[in-house]
Amino acid sequence: MLDAIWDSVRRVRERAPLVHNITNYVVMNNTANALLAIGASPAMVHAAEEVEDFVGISSALVVNIGTLSPPWVAAMHLAVRKANAAGIPWVLDPVGVGATGYRTEVAGELGALRPTVVRANASEVMALAGAATGPTRGVDSTASTNDGLEPAHRLARATGGVVAMTGVTDYVTDGTHTHAINNGHAMMARVTGLGCSVSALVGAFLAVEKDALLAAVSALTVFGVAGEIAAARAAGPGSLQMQLLDVLHNLDRADLDKHARVN
Amino acid sequence: MLDAIWDSVRRVRERAPLVHNITNYVVMNNTANALLAIGASPAMVHAAEEVEDFVGISSALVVNIGTLSPPWVAAMHLAVRKANAAGIPWVLDPVGVGATGYRTEVAGELGALRPTVVRANASEVMALAGAATGPTRGVDSTASTNDGLEPAHRLARATGGVVAMTGVTDYVTDGTHTHAINNGHAMMARVTGLGCSVSALVGAFLAVEKDALLAAVSALTVFGVAGEIAAARAAGPGSLQMQLLDVLHNLDRADLDKHARVN
Amino acid sequence: MLDAIWDSVRRVRERAPLVHNITNYVVMNNTANALLAIGASPAMVHAAEEVEDFVGISSALVVNIGTLSPPWVAAMHLAVRKANAAGIPWVLDPVGVGATGYRTEVAGELGALRPTVVRANASEVMALAGAATGPTRGVDSTASTNDGLEPAHRLARATGGVVAMTGVTDYVTDGTHTHAINNGHAMMARVTGLGCSVSALVGAFLAVEKDALLAAVSALTVFGVAGEIAAARAAGPGSLQMQLLDVLHNLDRADLDKHARVN
Repeated sequence: MLDAIWDSVRRVRERAPLVHNITNYVVMNNTANALLAIGASPAMVHAAEEVEDFVGISSALVVNIGTLSPPWVAAMHLAVRKANAAGIPWVLDPVGVGATGYRTEVAGELGALRPTVVRANASEVMALAGAATGPTRGVDSTASTNDGLEPAHRLARATGGVVAMTGVTDYVTDGTHTHAINNGHAMMARVTGLGCSVSALVGAFLAVEKDALLAAVSALTVFGVAGEIAAARAAGPGSLQMQLLDVLHNLDRADLDKHARVN
Repeated sequence: MLDAIWDSVRRVRERAPLVHNITNYVVMNNTANALLAIGASPAMVHAAEEVEDFVGISSALVVNIGTLSPPWVAAMHLAVRKANAAGIPWVLDPVGVGATGYRTEVAGELGALRPTVVRANASEVMALAGAATGPTRGVDSTASTNDGLEPAHRLARATGGVVAMTGVTDYVTDGTHTHAINNGHAMMARVTGLGCSVSALVGAFLAVEKDALLAAVSALTVFGVAGEIAAARAAGPGSLQMQLLDVLHNLDRADLDKHARVN
Repeated sequence: MLDAIWDSVRRVRERAPLVHNITNYVVMNNTANALLAIGASPAMVHAAEEVEDFVGISSALVVNIGTLSPPWVAAMHLAVRKANAAGIPWVLDPVGVGATGYRTEVAGELGALRPTVVRANASEVMALAGAATGPTRGVDSTASTNDGLEPAHRLARATGGVVAMTGVTDYVTDGTHTHAINNGHAMMARVTGLGCSVSALVGAFLAVEKDALLAAVSALTVFGVAGEIAAARAAGPGSLQMQLLDVLHNLDRADLDKHARVN
């Protein structure tokens, strides 16, 4: 597995794939920086007038509903339909699905468009899977990924794609095969938008790896390992955010061998 | 006073209150990070389709007009009316009021909706209070908080709430009782959006403390102390921004005892 | 040349000119921080209801199309026309021009309004100059500034202003006189929005220096020198971004004398 993950890292660095993001205002800067740090070429483009053209020159699309509004949702639909028509892989990050009716409706409609990968926390996976669960509380998960495992399988079978659920233990599943990743650090939850960053990294890995399960496992493992190394060097969430970009940029095979806990 | 402030810090960390922000594009990332660093759970939500629902699950609302436009202002009104109806405390940050007619009109309309706390610099307090003053110059204050003290009292009496005016000396007043806080560091003015971050922290403290005067004093004292400690460790505004998040995350009672200058 | 550049730095720090930015969501925070670090007073204002008023109190305007959409483009036009009528210098940063038809059309229309300075990478200069070139690939340049030199001259003559083209070697030209700057560091391309930051610094220098060629050379030299010093202290792109703000804030004449390579 680590050989395959490392091959993907190398391909991202060599090809610098263009990753088209329609994402939320909060995380645009650190998402772009995370993509640059791993070696990809990020772009944030959301106008209905150009999203289809931009998908056409991109190697992957990432759709994140964090600060959604109707004009952005309309552009997301245009972009996703173009990606599906052109065979370009895309990631759905259904931020806060379940917190409001509007958010749940929009996430459900996008989820029905067969995302290559859904990246979400456990509360969001459960809401999107229609699991019998309490309402999502804001954008931070109130459920453990253990609770979300069955809904994740169900969601993957419903979308026909992969579900990458992040938490203390990350799970990546296509509904049949499931991998668990035990990397990362609790302090990562104290930095905004790291979930959004890993969604974007899934896009970067999909751009160079056709096996969506492997691409998602690669992104989550690399991000978890980098977060863990960064946290060990950090005095708090401010320095963690900075260290994380440095570590992603400098990550080598030995870091992966030493830290990765994936199966 | 320090006992009460520290109790509020502990409650924020224990309860992780959901703080709903309708704020400006410039500061969304570091505002969310400041809220996470102190222990709250931030969310940035602005669509008219969902702001009322989101206020309904939140413990405080923060409205900041930094990069206002008509659709955002409409959502602000919906959110504020819902907060008032549901008894949820809310903070108004009237960024740049006085700089343009549009900004002054919008801030005046929101100010008339009885914000629990107005957090602003001296120029903004004077503009919002209708004080005879020159026009606000951009978003940075040209007046001292000393000049703003009488207008702050007047504004507090007009809104029926608390005014938290930040500058070299911060003043927090309900129009009758006034506290002065002498913390912070000059270099904080060289980092964008720290005023917006402290407005958001006021929201976090209002979520756990019904006494709005005390909540605002707590937020400004904690932020000023953290800024002062961070500045002592910083080589410039870049490292100050990073250190500030680390210090907020690690702040303990001894830091408060050693540095707080509040009365 | 260094005397003139340093005089401009001192004037920015003394006058703290208000620089009005209509820029993209990705870079608003670090653009504002770069302007604060060099000593200017940034504001991000984009509502059609107030952009003209805000231009009227500003010393320079910076227009950046990175995350353009029709309402923002309309506001850009209002702001630019006001700036031209009032004799306020303005900078155009045509992010990603050539990547989509919409982007090319918008950049062309703004470019026809006689920007005081166009700041762009080589691919963007070539696209805006209508050079026979392949399509821009996202927002990162695929061409060298050497290839862009003739198109830059042509573009400067067409706009009647200055073109500041950044890359491994930066070139600043008014179509007749051309300066080359050999500062900066390769790792700067791994931090999002540093091109946007230098565009904003051009605005700050235009606010204090009527000679647009000199203002642009000053901004690019100062930013390149600061980037170079910051990169030497950085372990990766995360720490580079932090160090850059610290270095800009602390930059002194000796740094310029030691590092600047401009002719």
